[in-house]
Amino acid sequence: MNEDEIKQVLNAVNARKMSIETAFKRLQHLSYENLSFARVDHHRHIRQGVPEVIFAQGKKVDDVIAIAHSIYKRSRKLLITKATKEIIDRLNMHDAVFYPLSGTIAVHGAKKKKGNVLILSAGTSDIPIAEEAAVTASFLGSRVESIYDVGVAGLHRLAGAKKSLDSARVIVVVAGMEGALPSVVGGLVDKPVIAVPTSIGYGTSLKGLTALFAMLNSCVPGIAVMNIDNGFGAGCLAHKINIV
Amino acid sequence: MNEDEIKQVLNAVNARKMSIETAFKRLQHLSYENLSFARVDHHRHIRQGVPEVIFAQGKKVDDVIAIAHSIYKRSRKLLITKATKEIIDRLNMHDAVFYPLSGTIAVHGAKKKKGNVLILSAGTSDIPIAEEAAVTASFLGSRVESIYDVGVAGLHRLAGAKKSLDSARVIVVVAGMEGALPSVVGGLVDKPVIAVPTSIGYGTSLKGLTALFAMLNSCVPGIAVMNIDNGFGAGCLAHKINIV
Amino acid sequence: MNEDEIKQVLNAVNARKMSIETAFKRLQHLSYENLSFARVDHHRHIRQGVPEVIFAQGKKVDDVIAIAHSIYKRSRKLLITKATKEIIDRLNMHDAVFYPLSGTIAVHGAKKKKGNVLILSAGTSDIPIAEEAAVTASFLGSRVESIYDVGVAGLHRLAGAKKSLDSARVIVVVAGMEGALPSVVGGLVDKPVIAVPTSIGYGTSLKGLTALFAMLNSCVPGIAVMNIDNGFGAGCLAHKINIV
Amino acid sequence: MNEDEIKQVLNAVNARKMSIETAFKRLQHLSYENLSFARVDHHRHIRQGVPEVIFAQGKKVDDVIAIAHSIYKRSRKLLITKATKEIIDRLNMHDAVFYPLSGTIAVHGAKKKKGNVLILSAGTSDIPIAEEAAVTASFLGSRVESIYDVGVAGLHRLAGAKKSLDSARVIVVVAGMEGALPSVVGGLVDKPVIAVPTSIGYGTSLKGLTALFAMLNSCVPGIAVMNIDNGFGAGCLAHKINIV
Amino acid sequence: MNEDEIKQVLNAVNARKMSIETAFKRLQHLSYENLSFARVDHHRHIRQGVPEVIFAQGKKVDDVIAIAHSIYKRSRKLLITKATKEIIDRLNMHDAVFYPLSGTIAVHGAKKKKGNVLILSAGTSDIPIAEEAAVTASFLGSRVESIYDVGVAGLHRLAGAKKSLDSARVIVVVAGMEGALPSVVGGLVDKPVIAVPTSIGYGTSLKGLTALFAMLNSCVPGIAVMNIDNGFGAGCLAHKINIV
Amino acid sequence: MNEDEIKQVLNAVNARKMSIETAFKRLQHLSYENLSFARVDHHRHIRQGVPEVIFAQGKKVDDVIAIAHSIYKRSRKLLITKATKEIIDRLNMHDAVFYPLSGTIAVHGAKKKKGNVLILSAGTSDIPIAEEAAVTASFLGSRVESIYDVGVAGLHRLAGAKKSLDSARVIVVVAGMEGALPSVVGGLVDKPVIAVPTSIGYGTSLKGLTALFAMLNSCVPGIAVMNIDNGFGAGCLAHKINIV
Amino acid sequence: MNEDEIKQVLNAVNARKMSIETAFKRLQHLSYENLSFARVDHHRHIRQGVPEVIFAQGKKVDDVIAIAHSIYKRSRKLLITKATKEIIDRLNMHDAVFYPLSGTIAVHGAKKKKGNVLILSAGTSDIPIAEEAAVTASFLGSRVESIYDVGVAGLHRLAGAKKSLDSARVIVVVAGMEGALPSVVGGLVDKPVIAVPTSIGYGTSLKGLTALFAMLNSCVPGIAVMNIDNGFGAGCLAHKINIV
Amino acid sequence: MNEDEIKQVLNAVNARKMSIETAFKRLQHLSYENLSFARVDHHRHIRQGVPEVIFAQGKKVDDVIAIAHSIYKRSRKLLITKATKEIIDRLNMHDAVFYPLSGTIAVHGAKKKKGNVLILSAGTSDIPIAEEAAVTASFLGSRVESIYDVGVAGLHRLAGAKKSLDSARVIVVVAGMEGALPSVVGGLVDKPVIAVPTSIGYGTSLKGLTALFAMLNSCVPGIAVMNIDNGFGAGCLAHKINIV
Repeated sequence: MNEDEIKQVLNAVNARKMSIETAFKRLQHLSYENLSFARVDHHRHIRQGVPEVIFAQGKKVDDVIAIAHSIYKRSRKLLITKATKEIIDRLNMHDAVFYPLSGTIAVHGAKKKKGNVLILSAGTSDIPIAEEAAVTASFLGSRVESIYDVGVAGLHRLAGAKKSLDSARVIVVVAGMEGALPSVVGGLVDKPVIAVPTSIGYGTSLKGLTALFAMLNSCVPGIAVMNIDNGFGAGCLAHKINIV
Repeated sequence: MNEDEIKQVLNAVNARKMSIETAFKRLQHLSYENLSFARVDHHRHIRQGVPEVIFAQGKKVDDVIAIAHSIYKRSRKLLITKATKEIIDRLNMHDAVFYPLSGTIAVHGAKKKKGNVLILSAGTSDIPIAEEAAVTASFLGSRVESIYDVGVAGLHRLAGAKKSLDSARVIVVVAGMEGALPSVVGGLVDKPVIAVPTSIGYGTSLKGLTALFAMLNSCVPGIAVMNIDNGFGAGCLAHKINIV
Repeated sequence: MNEDEIKQVLNAVNARKMSIETAFKRLQHLSYENLSFARVDHHRHIRQGVPEVIFAQGKKVDDVIAIAHSIYKRSRKLLITKATKEIIDRLNMHDAVFYPLSGTIAVHGAKKKKGNVLILSAGTSDIPIAEEAAVTASFLGSRVESIYDVGVAGLHRLAGAKKSLDSARVIVVVAGMEGALPSVVGGLVDKPVIAVPTSIGYGTSLKGLTALFAMLNSCVPGIAVMNIDNGFGAGCLAHKINIV
Repeated sequence: MNEDEIKQVLNAVNARKMSIETAFKRLQHLSYENLSFARVDHHRHIRQGVPEVIFAQGKKVDDVIAIAHSIYKRSRKLLITKATKEIIDRLNMHDAVFYPLSGTIAVHGAKKKKGNVLILSAGTSDIPIAEEAAVTASFLGSRVESIYDVGVAGLHRLAGAKKSLDSARVIVVVAGMEGALPSVVGGLVDKPVIAVPTSIGYGTSLKGLTALFAMLNSCVPGIAVMNIDNGFGAGCLAHKINIV
Repeated sequence: MNEDEIKQVLNAVNARKMSIETAFKRLQHLSYENLSFARVDHHRHIRQGVPEVIFAQGKKVDDVIAIAHSIYKRSRKLLITKATKEIIDRLNMHDAVFYPLSGTIAVHGAKKKKGNVLILSAGTSDIPIAEEAAVTASFLGSRVESIYDVGVAGLHRLAGAKKSLDSARVIVVVAGMEGALPSVVGGLVDKPVIAVPTSIGYGTSLKGLTALFAMLNSCVPGIAVMNIDNGFGAGCLAHKINIV
Repeated sequence: MNEDEIKQVLNAVNARKMSIETAFKRLQHLSYENLSFARVDHHRHIRQGVPEVIFAQGKKVDDVIAIAHSIYKRSRKLLITKATKEIIDRLNMHDAVFYPLSGTIAVHGAKKKKGNVLILSAGTSDIPIAEEAAVTASFLGSRVESIYDVGVAGLHRLAGAKKSLDSARVIVVVAGMEGALPSVVGGLVDKPVIAVPTSIGYGTSLKGLTALFAMLNSCVPGIAVMNIDNGFGAGCLAHKINIV
Repeated sequence: MNEDEIKQVLNAVNARKMSIETAFKRLQHLSYENLSFARVDHHRHIRQGVPEVIFAQGKKVDDVIAIAHSIYKRSRKLLITKATKEIIDRLNMHDAVFYPLSGTIAVHGAKKKKGNVLILSAGTSDIPIAEEAAVTASFLGSRVESIYDVGVAGLHRLAGAKKSLDSARVIVVVAGMEGALPSVVGGLVDKPVIAVPTSIGYGTSLKGLTALFAMLNSCVPGIAVMNIDNGFGAGCLAHKINIV
Repeated sequence: MNEDEIKQVLNAVNARKMSIETAFKRLQHLSYENLSFARVDHHRHIRQGVPEVIFAQGKKVDDVIAIAHSIYKRSRKLLITKATKEIIDRLNMHDAVFYPLSGTIAVHGAKKKKGNVLILSAGTSDIPIAEEAAVTASFLGSRVESIYDVGVAGLHRLAGAKKSLDSARVIVVVAGMEGALPSVVGGLVDKPVIAVPTSIGYGTSLKGLTALFAMLNSCVPGIAVMNIDNGFGAGCLAHKINIV
């Protein structure tokens, strides 16, 4: 219930076209519903497309398809993460774009791209998570550049990215194994850095916990850290920072 | 904002004694303020004494004394957990009772005791946590009986407690080390059992994690588990169940 | 061996219809068997249907079917948790009801429902565990209401549940990921709250450990915590509290 | 080696006052030295005050005093975190300001404050870390507002902070125990949220790991997470985002 | 090399029938070879059947079959643990006995059974590990009695086992979940108790770690603990103690 | 209640000297009391001195002294583990012997020593735990031999212990750090080996968890493992095995 | 940018065919590009074949084949670890050698073998990792000898390896379960020992963490430890040490 | 007992100056003592000073002094790690050198220094562990160079160390927090790199576990990893590699 609707009720009461009882019924749950509408309102504004997101992993394909069509009907846009080929095949939406590395599906993301988000990934195996972050930020309305395969053992490739580092407003760094790349990047720039640990590695990589903890302990102060493999979250945060 | 107040606003609008703008202003922040007052209201009703509690551990004595007097002034009752002798000495409240094993201080707890809460502890070292649970439940208004030192290696003492087990409405079981007592007690009764793991033990007792996990995995279904050493929480829950 | 049977033996001895030796043999294992009968007796009374439960996960279908029929023959009721479609298909019991989300099978649960148990779940993925709790409590004889999908990011749905929150005697809150919902609900009500962490999430959700630990550390005092994914246990405890 | 020096070499070669061999030798180690000057340069620009920071915990008082004077001499500003009263007493700097709750010392921080950083803390015990974040961001040049003691059990206080939430460009949320506050705040706003877990709690709070993991698993997408008790890092990141 | 052999060498030297060089060569490698033969000797004596064991899990069927025949050829007996139906089918050994619950295969175990080993298991799901312990101890030459399904919620069954408890020389207790049974049994008897945690359970059972730690922290002093699911080890130890 | 007492009741009923009601009252609580007496009885027989033990660590000196005198009065013997010099000074018992390395106090242990328990420790830092095991087993009535400082880097000292290894009936091996010694010893002998991990080490020794896990994973089958630093438990088990 | 290119620029400046400005522009990014070329250069020299390595596990067969041919084309040699039969079948390279136990593929490794690397493995299940280390070191140019199945329970086999131990310049020890073998070997030799924990074991072997921690805590000083199952890394390090 | 001594005995027997009995007594324990002498012999050769080491932490000052004098008397050299000022004060050895940062005491280390060991440390707080490694390697006979404070945020200092990196035969890298430096250094050189994690950091640094795991997961193949804070071990390994 937004401002207009509340005023409509009040006007109707004032015009004596609506009884006190009816008006009260419309308003009575405000203590609760008000909260809800306020937050939904907020959410709608804030998230600019985020609510249209489905996390497909672990859901049945039928359910994903059903939710997807319901969301699309309401909002005319849609983002699905951790999707499969089967989902895109059965989705049957004309403008849906499928990103196979990350399994992301985007339909009618933001047209106008603003600002400048740079996505870096350390190894080839980290690309799916980096792609998820890139597609998400782009879908939400950020201009995105991606440079993949910039490991600590490939720092020279980072060197070639000087211009991109300089022009970005916020940088997402995706890395598994020892998770050292965000520290190295963070030491080179003065802008917000978002670190995403991936579950790439074996043994004591502990499915990404080692990279996560390394990033949280970076000697570079103020690195923003995400959950393991959470490229989607990184894309959201990068976009929020990008448009601050 | 309650029903009457909302209707007053609507009546004033209907009577054209209040402008739409004024009415809207009165209503527009409902989302937040309503929530807040509602919850405060709820809280006051719900917690019946729980807000009067200070967790003294890690706080400076001066601060504890100051908060204690401020709470007591407002509510005429007070509970302090994990307190020290220095606190009771400096508190200077006439009716304060100090329980030295658990370091609990109670002032003017509920006078009328209802129902029947039974507190069992496994070893002598678990008594402080058991006492904290007992004092808390009693302070909140429950009738409390305590039987200490009923370990798995002292089950015969449990046998002697048959009558107490039978008459209790809810039972709190406090145990460290392997945390097996709640399973044994839970197998003997058909009433709610609350298990409190303690940090008693060494090596693989992992400061109470082993007892906690053992309790969560009890083969007796439906045992309520608390955080390690959380006698206060157990006392609160026992009281809430006791007065359902 | 119950009171009547013991007295029969004593009467027979008194009437000299039974030799001392025979009587002794009947009684000699009382130290042990007495315990057993007592506990079985207790159990029968206490658990009101709980012993009729089979945890199907990890068991072979043949075994589940066999145990199920044996239990049903004896008690004319039956509850199976974590069951599959294959089990219900092969069970071949006329009145068996299968709940496909949680995989619960209930046969002839309690007819008369008492009190009021409210089950809340945070996300759609938590529904299976919530359903298991609901079916269990209902089977044991509790009146149950369920409200699903009330996440911290969907608190407005909780707002709409005010009436249900008010009328419940005990509330079960099921949540995965960061497990924050029990704290929020616990802050709104003054009745016992049972928190069930689920294994929903990825990375640092640690298969439910994070939600579990968050619940154990709730700033709301006295929340009862269950093992991860233990909807059945929550249903049992909710019922026990509901009928206190 | 800076631009002037490189050009000097080139000019000398052009003027044939320097042989190719000599010029090459001067330039050949550029790979290393160039890197170093470049990065130092970067660092100076980027960090705007961050290098002037001393992490006092675990260092000897004598060492802290010595480093502090050396830094102050060079940069005319200084920030010390996790300091003690003894350090401020012996520091003997006229304009040093000591924040006793967090043990932060600031000397000549940025005069002009820009933007709007909001710092929220959940419990009274979390205030030291919140203060550290606030002093840091302010020292670096951000306008900072702080609201303390906004726990999940005190959400109404959050309600009163609506205006502050609306006007902030970035929000830091500091919480221990179950770490639920960032999720609740994150659900209310559309701006970047930085979550700082604290080591407040006991038992399964695991010295802050539980709050940390809960924050990483927030159902609100895109929350930036810091290491446990890292108020300084949160202040740095908040400032970087605030001035994007 | 034993006393006689060393003296032979010395006598030969004394009799000048052996040169210093030859004598030295005979003696110089004592450091290694002596060790090796001594230990081999020991091993042969000590293990009496234990070396004939194959741990089949994770090995290819072909390899297991090959090793099995090679062992059987040499020693005319054989024990395979964690085997499958396919292995017993392809083994093609006339006298091989397959225990399907535990997947143990025994060929020509010790004929004469000595002493008295009692194996108890807590739940039906723990029976495979209990069976493995029983078959192992029996194979090595111990008389074995097994009582299954004696959980903490089924203590009355333990009561019926009084005679078995009294006559055993050593007791193996197999339990998963909270692992409380060894504590209860250990409180009833004065003989060595061997506890075997199983990986039965879910959530915080942590694949058996909880049961393991509970057993290590038993309030009954001196319980011998095995690795998770190590029924074979328990059978070996029980036999060694049984024949002390 | 033993056989004679039950028969007395039956005879009295048979002789009509005791009414059915009185007889029933005598028998009706058998379920509980019988259990309790039975177990107490068992305990007295079983533990032969074990109940006389006080675990002093974490207890107040006053309490230890009081419990010690109470135990000694009843049983004329006493064992205190993890005691301090202050306790022995204040204990004031004529025949008390204090073992300062382990902090064990023994009064009037078993005079007749039976069998043969060998205690080995890996490093000098492990000696306190080894001594605790030795004093315990000796107190309970076992003949004990100790050989200290037999690390993997000092295997030659083990070599010198061949005779002791051969004559022992059971061997206790105490080791911290990587905990490898029990595997090496277990490979040399065919008798029960009890492994005690100690908390000696740093970093990834994880306060003894590494040694514990290494011992549980020994490639030598059937090693009995104790909790970390549990020399007392090892002494109890060694004695129980020694007298089997 | 290599030496020739830098000199070309300087010559052009010297010859006044290139302006200072143009020359500076060519050189100014040296800080980055120089780094890159330098490091690539270094890498080529240093790694002598290491860059030609593909870690096949988790990669699609198509991708592995494509990368393999691209690498081979450039460098005329190739190493693939954790490969499958399918990969070698489809690789279609004439001189490729497939090691089926470890799944390693080597093409045109170093022809001249230098020095002496000894590889020991504890159990038969550790052989795949040992083979990976052996093939890697050999591929890089080290002479390699392997002795498998030298467990702590088979130390006599180690004794027989005295000559190999003596002649090796560096020793790799591969072991799972309790990981004790490196300590035993390290106690016998005065040369560098590299320990590789494997994920062999179950329960508290914790997928190799126990062996890893045991190796890190070896009482033998200075053992080099690798990640779990990292035979490739061990082969690289052994080769680097071997050719120091 | 070395070759000469054995031959002396044999010669004496041959010369009939020593009876068979006496000779046998001298030799009889060879099976064991031979092992011991061999290993001691080996050790003496191998460790070149390592046996002269005392790990002082956790030992009483009196004991350290006593052991120190006993070792010095025998070997005329001595190394004490983790020592305190009190120990050096009371040691009263003329030539003892005390390194206060690491608490290392060295007496008469190797005079001739060979090869080239480079020690790098990431932060100022890591210097004590780096110093311990440096003193150890130097004591054993290696030429050592140290460069401290080369963090990922101070890579330019690493650049200035190019010459040192080039001339070293083996490099020790000491780092806490995220432990990224060994990866960066390892990417720059082709010689053995030894990584030492330190316990520096807080929160998720987990007392060094994070740095340790990061190092074990380095994307640079073949880095040798030590236990947390084990500078001594790194010094030993560096020396062993340096003199290969």
